Amino acid sequence: MTPSSVSTTTVPARVEAVRALLEREHLDALLVPSADPHLSEYLPRHWQVRRWLSGFNGSVGTLVITPTFAGLWADSRYWEQAEKELNGTGIVLMKLQPGAPGPLDWLAAQVREGGAVAVDARVLALQSERTLKQKLAARGIALRGERDWIATLWSDRPGLPGEPVVAHEPPFATESVAEKLGRVRQAMAEAEADAHFIATVDDIAWLFNLRGSDVNYNPVFLSYALVTAEQVVLWIGENKVPASLQEQLQAQGVQVRPYEEVLSDLARLPPTTRLLLDPARVTAGVVASVPASVRFIEQVNPTTLFKACKGEAELGHVRRAMERDGAALCEFFAWLDSALGREPVTEVTVDERLLEARARQPDFVCPSFATIAAFAANGALPHYRATAKAHAVIEGDGLLLIDSGGQYRGGTTDITRMVAVGKLSEEQKADCTRVLQGMIALSRARFPSGILSPLLDAIARAPLWADNIDYGHGTGHGVGYFLNVHEGPQVIAYQAAPAPHTAMREGMITSIEPGTYRPGRWGVRIENLVATRAAGEGEFGSFLKFETLTLCPIDTRCLLLQRLTQEERAWLNAYHAEVRARLSPLVDGEVLAWLHHRTEAV
Amino acid sequence: MTPSSVSTTTVPARVEAVRALLEREHLDALLVPSADPHLSEYLPRHWQVRRWLSGFNGSVGTLVITPTFAGLWADSRYWEQAEKELNGTGIVLMKLQPGAPGPLDWLAAQVREGGAVAVDARVLALQSERTLKQKLAARGIALRGERDWIATLWSDRPGLPGEPVVAHEPPFATESVAEKLGRVRQAMAEAEADAHFIATVDDIAWLFNLRGSDVNYNPVFLSYALVTAEQVVLWIGENKVPASLQEQLQAQGVQVRPYEEVLSDLARLPPTTRLLLDPARVTAGVVASVPASVRFIEQVNPTTLFKACKGEAELGHVRRAMERDGAALCEFFAWLDSALGREPVTEVTVDERLLEARARQPDFVCPSFATIAAFAANGALPHYRATAKAHAVIEGDGLLLIDSGGQYRGGTTDITRMVAVGKLSEEQKADCTRVLQGMIALSRARFPSGILSPLLDAIARAPLWADNIDYGHGTGHGVGYFLNVHEGPQVIAYQAAPAPHTAMREGMITSIEPGTYRPGRWGVRIENLVATRAAGEGEFGSFLKFETLTLCPIDTRCLLLQRLTQEERAWLNAYHAEVRARLSPLVDGEVLAWLHHRTEAV
Repeated sequence: MTPSSVSTTTVPARVEAVRALLEREHLDALLVPSADPHLSEYLPRHWQVRRWLSGFNGSVGTLVITPTFAGLWADSRYWEQAEKELNGTGIVLMKLQPGAPGPLDWLAAQVREGGAVAVDARVLALQSERTLKQKLAARGIALRGERDWIATLWSDRPGLPGEPVVAHEPPFATESVAEKLGRVRQAMAEAEADAHFIATVDDIAWLFNLRGSDVNYNPVFLSYALVTAEQVVLWIGENKVPASLQEQLQAQGVQVRPYEEVLSDLARLPPTTRLLLDPARVTAGVVASVPASVRFIEQVNPTTLFKACKGEAELGHVRRAMERDGAALCEFFAWLDSALGREPVTEVTVDERLLEARARQPDFVCPSFATIAAFAANGALPHYRATAKAHAVIEGDGLLLIDSGGQYRGGTTDITRMVAVGKLSEEQKADCTRVLQGMIALSRARFPSGILSPLLDAIARAPLWADNIDYGHGTGHGVGYFLNVHEGPQVIAYQAAPAPHTAMREGMITSIEPGTYRPGRWGVRIENLVATRAAGEGEFGSFLKFETLTLCPIDTRCLLLQRLTQEERAWLNAYHAEVRARLSPLVDGEVLAWLHHRTEAV
Repeated sequence: MTPSSVSTTTVPARVEAVRALLEREHLDALLVPSADPHLSEYLPRHWQVRRWLSGFNGSVGTLVITPTFAGLWADSRYWEQAEKELNGTGIVLMKLQPGAPGPLDWLAAQVREGGAVAVDARVLALQSERTLKQKLAARGIALRGERDWIATLWSDRPGLPGEPVVAHEPPFATESVAEKLGRVRQAMAEAEADAHFIATVDDIAWLFNLRGSDVNYNPVFLSYALVTAEQVVLWIGENKVPASLQEQLQAQGVQVRPYEEVLSDLARLPPTTRLLLDPARVTAGVVASVPASVRFIEQVNPTTLFKACKGEAELGHVRRAMERDGAALCEFFAWLDSALGREPVTEVTVDERLLEARARQPDFVCPSFATIAAFAANGALPHYRATAKAHAVIEGDGLLLIDSGGQYRGGTTDITRMVAVGKLSEEQKADCTRVLQGMIALSRARFPSGILSPLLDAIARAPLWADNIDYGHGTGHGVGYFLNVHEGPQVIAYQAAPAPHTAMREGMITSIEPGTYRPGRWGVRIENLVATRAAGEGEFGSFLKFETLTLCPIDTRCLLLQRLTQEERAWLNAYHAEVRARLSPLVDGEVLAWLHHRTEAV
C-alpha cells in the first residue's frame, strides 16, 4: 500500500496513517507542535498540521503519536474544547499544568531507550530543538527532524497564502527602510556580527515598511530576511510583490528572492560568517542549511526592541487611531445600551456591530484579533469566542465582557470593557471594582527606567490579592504599531521569566488588563493600552511612567464606587474628562449624549 | 631570598611579596576574594587575606595583583572608605558598578593569552570557579587554585578560632536532630542522592542543634557535614566539642571527625556516590578532593529551606524574643528622648546604651550585627558604622537612624527606627513618610503562595517610585532563628534573580526595610521583621500574608501624617495599639509612660 492511497478523511484514519509511517521509517513517535517556520501566533492553513491530524481546533496544543498512544497537550484554557473535539478520535487530552510532564518530558521518559522521535524541524524553534535533543539524549533517543513527515499523507493540504503585500507609507511610516537598516547594522556591529537572519514576519514587516494579509488579524506576510553590511535579501513568494513595489525595494538595495529558495541560499553563506540570530525566533530546520562553519551570535532580534519602542511621530498617530477607535466604541456602546431590552442582542451581534462601527472610521483596516464578546458564564473563559452555532443571547441580569481591537494604518488597538446588563450583584460589582483598582494602580505607577517588566505585575495584582483573588493570564503584553496585537519583548506577568530583554523602555505600548474569572458564573477584565513615557531624571536615576492611550468610558454601573480611594476616584474622573474632551468632537447626536452621560464625574 | 624572609609589615611590602611569588611560580595574577571555605558573611581573622594584603577593612571587596597592577573592586557602599584606606598603598580602587568590568572580566581581558591566574580554590565557590574558568578559557588562560598562595607570606597569621560549641536545647530547639536528619534524608531520596555534603555553617548549626561563637554576631562554628542514609559525619576543630556534648552527638549517630581531615575523608567517598551539594555554597577547593567518579546532584541545600520556614513553636519563641527586644528598645528610646539636649549623646553612646538595655533581657546572647547609629549625613551611608575615633555627636536638628538587632536563644531580631532630633524639615518628613508607606504597603500585602520573593518588591517601592525615589539595597532579607541575621533563600529585591528557590513560603521570617538616602544630607530607613503566614485557600489557590513580629513604636514626629491614606493610618494605629498592649507588661515607670505617649493613635 503506497502512502498516498491511505484514506485520511477521518482523524482516526490520519492517526493510523501516521502509525504506518512510523513503522515504515523505524520511528517511535511523531511530535507535532502548533507552529510554522516563522513561529507566528496565527498559522496559515498550510501549517495547521496539528489541527488536521487531531481535529482539535484550539490555537495552541502539541500532538504526540506513537504506535500505541496518541495524546494532545493543551493548557487549561482549552481543556473544555479539546475534550469535546477529541471525543471519539482515540486521542487523549493531556492536561498541561504545573507538575505534570509536558510533551517533551513525556517523550524523553516514554520512548524506548535508543529509539527515535520524528518532528518537522522546520517548525521547531532552534532553542526548543536543543532542549528536546538534550532531554532525549539522556536515554539515547535520536531526534529526526529532516522532513515534513505528513507531507505525503495530507493530500488536500492547502497551499501557502499568496496575498499581495502593500507599502506601509508616510505619514504612518515615520522612519525610512534605510534608517531602520542603519539601526540594525549598528546593532550587528555592536554584536560583532556580519550577517543577521530574521524569520519572524512582524520583524520583517516593520523593517521593510511593508504590510500583508497572509494570516488573520496580523498584517504580515510570509518571508525571511538577511541583512549584511552590503546586502539585504528578502525571501518572499513570487507574485506577492507588485511590480512598482518591487522597483522601490530594489532602489533601496533590497534583493527580492523566491520564498522557497531560502534554504539553498542560506547554504551558500560564506563559511566564515558570524551570523546574528535569535534561537527562540528561528527554526532548527531553516538554519540547518547554514554551513556548519558559520558561527552563531545569539540574541534577541534587534528589530524586536526597535519596533517595541515607538517614536514620537508614531505615538502621535496612535493617539489619533485611539480617538477613532474610541469614537467607534462610543457609537457601538450607545447603540448597545439603547438596544438591550428592546431588540434581540447576542454575542455575535456585538461582534458584527463593533466591526461595522470600526469600519466606518478612516484608516481602519481590519480587527486586530477575534472579538471576545462573552456574556455571564462565558466571560469566565478568558479566550472565549462566540460562534454562529454557539453563543449566548444578552438578556436578563449579568456582566458582559467585550475584548476587541482594530488595525488602523496609524496604530493597533486592544480594549476590554465590562457592561452592566440588568441588575448586578454586590459580588459582581466587587469583582469589577477590584479589577479596576488593579488597572488604576499600574496605570498611575512610576518606576525606574529599565526595570524588568515582570517585576511590575505585583502593583496591578495587589488590590486583587488583598482579597485572595488572582488570574492565570499576564497583566500586560506589548502591542505593535499597525502590527501584531501581541508582541514582545516586554511582558507584565509574574509567571514570566524576568530576562534582561524584558526591560521596560520609553515608547513601548503595553496592555494593562487585570481580571477575575469565576467558572460557571462570570468573568471580569478591564483593559487599556498605555505608552511608556519619560518621567524625569534626578538624584535617584531616571524614571518612567505610563500614558493611557485607550479612550473609552468605563461603565461605572459595574462599580462599588464607595470602595474607591480618593486617589482612584480622582484617576477615574480625570480619565473620563479626557475621554470626553477628546472624543466629543468625533461623535454627535445620541452618541454624544451617551458619551457625556457615561463620562460624568463620580 | 626565601619567601619567609620577605618583610611584610606594610601593604606595599605585601604586594611586592605577592609579585615575587607570581614570578617564582610563573603566574600572571593573584585573585583574592573576601571569602572563607564556608562562604560565610563574617570571616574569621585567619581568612581575612584580602584585608591583610590590601589594608582595606570593608567586609566585601576583591583584590587582584599582577606584576604591574594592583586593584581592589568594591561596590558603592565602600568607595569612600576604600579610597581612604588604599591611599598610599599603590592599590587602585576599581569601582564595581553596572557596565564596568568586574574582577573576573577584567582578568579575562587583561591577563596575557595563555597565561595563568592564581586563586585559593578553597575559598572560591564551585559555581564561581566554573564561571571564572569559562571566562579565562576564551583566551587560553589557566586557573591555578591548588594552593593557599599567601600561606608562606603571612607569618603572623591568626589561627582558626577555637571557641567551644554549645547545645541549642529545648524549649528553644523545637525539633530533634533525628527529625531534622529525617527531613534531609527524605530530600536526598527525592533528589536520588545517597550522600549530601554541607559546608555552610548556619546550615550545620541548624541541623545539629548546636551554636558557636567563631565569628561575630552569627552564633555559628567552623565545620563541615556529610549525611548519607546510614552515616552522619561532622568535621569540627578538636576541643571545640565538650565531652558531654560529644557523647550526645555519638548517641545520635553523629561521627565527630577533626576539621582538617575533611579533604582526605572526602577523597575516600565511595566512587559511585551520588553527592547532593549546592555549587553556590561549597568551594571548588574543598570538593576538588572528591573522587572524580562521584556524580554531583546540584541544588540548594535542603536545610536552607527547612531552616527558613520556622515552625509554630519557633514562631512562639520569636514573638517572646520580640517582646523582650521591644522592651529593651523602649527603655533605650525613652532614655534617648530624655537625654538629648540634657547630656552629651553620640552615635557610640547609642550603640552602648542599646547593648546595655538588651543585655538586661533574659535569654539575650549578643548583638545580631554591628549597630548602625547614624546621625544626619551619616545616615546616607546604608552600612555606616560609628567608631570611637570617628562618630557624630547627636545635637541640633536632624534625623537619627538606628539599625540594630539581638541574638536571643529564642530568636534573632533586626529593627530600624528613625528618631526626630530637634526640628525636622518638610523634606525630611516627606522622606520618612514615603518610606513608612512602602513598609506598610508590603506589610499589609497578601500574595499567592509560592510567588518568587523578588516579585513582591514593587509593592514596597511603589510609594517611593511615585516621587522618582529609589534605594540601592534590597527591601527584605531572610532572618534566622537564633542564627544568622541574613539568610536565604528568599530575597525581596527587584535587583535579585527570581530563581525558583526564592519562593515565599509559610513560616519564613523576612525584613521589610525600604529607605531613602540623600548623600551628604540624611538617610531614612524603617524596618520591621515579618513572618509569612497562611492567608487562606480558596477558588484562586492558596494565599499568604505577613504577620509583623517587630514591636517598637514608630516615631510619628518624623511623619507628615496628613499624607497617610486612611488605610495607612489605620495600619499605624493598629500596630501601635498592639505594641502598647504587648510591651506594657514588660516596662514600667518612665519607660511605660514613654511607651503610652509614643503609641497614641494619630
